[in-house]
Amino acid sequence: MRSSDCIFCKIVAGDLPCTRVYEDDDVLAFMDIGPIIKGHTLVIPKVHVDPLTSVPDELLSRLILMVRRIAGALMKGLDADGINVTQANGAVAGQVVPHLHFHVIPRFENDKHHWNWNATSYDTTEEMESVAAQIRSGLPLEI
Amino acid sequence: MRSSDCIFCKIVAGDLPCTRVYEDDDVLAFMDIGPIIKGHTLVIPKVHVDPLTSVPDELLSRLILMVRRIAGALMKGLDADGINVTQANGAVAGQVVPHLHFHVIPRFENDKHHWNWNATSYDTTEEMESVAAQIRSGLPLEI
Repeated sequence: MRSSDCIFCKIVAGDLPCTRVYEDDDVLAFMDIGPIIKGHTLVIPKVHVDPLTSVPDELLSRLILMVRRIAGALMKGLDADGINVTQANGAVAGQVVPHLHFHVIPRFENDKHHWNWNATSYDTTEEMESVAAQIRSGLPLEI
Repeated sequence: MRSSDCIFCKIVAGDLPCTRVYEDDDVLAFMDIGPIIKGHTLVIPKVHVDPLTSVPDELLSRLILMVRRIAGALMKGLDADGINVTQANGAVAGQVVPHLHFHVIPRFENDKHHWNWNATSYDTTEEMESVAAQIRSGLPLEI
């Protein structure tokens, strides 16, 4: 399946260029041209699928195993000190290209990037319990 | 395997409290008490393992499938508009608890959170190609 307007589908098809890091029949890893930190790599499925909740089990497993391998390659090949993995679903979450992708970002001492991790808190334990109950109500019946 | 000083191992063992969202024999999903957005859930393996590059295939697959399910529960149960998934390896990447964990964060229109996604660029295409070659040099021989 391919979405004719999708920039990542065009990259997979070779209609747009990219710098490949690794690929197999199902998964492509390539350089993000707008890296948070140099070495920032994207891991995508070759088929057009989005969002995360719609990815079949086997493909999702393949993707996360490739993310792990790319993380290892960034650690070994670039001598990175750490790794961030991020994945966004929906424009409200910061997703720009609506084709599932994992960002695998090498981190280095003194790379000067700091996530704005603005942790908040619940007003009460009861509030947290109530939100948890809402989440549980959304879980599929069969897991 | 359990690390005696690990706060997440203590949560798994029941020695520290948490608000559980879902658990099975291998995986636990529970509420982050310092949420970026209310509903922010952590997905962890019950065994102590860290970082991402050291997680066995089957366990990693189990974890990402649980991340997907929790993402679906946040969408359905909280009526979220989007989802962020993040995972950090190393203090330099912002990791606080050194026990593998995925953050699954619900996003809403007007939730007022904006990631500081400070995209940079490569000076030249040759520089990007050179970094990619370094990454490829770190890939395991057998994939």
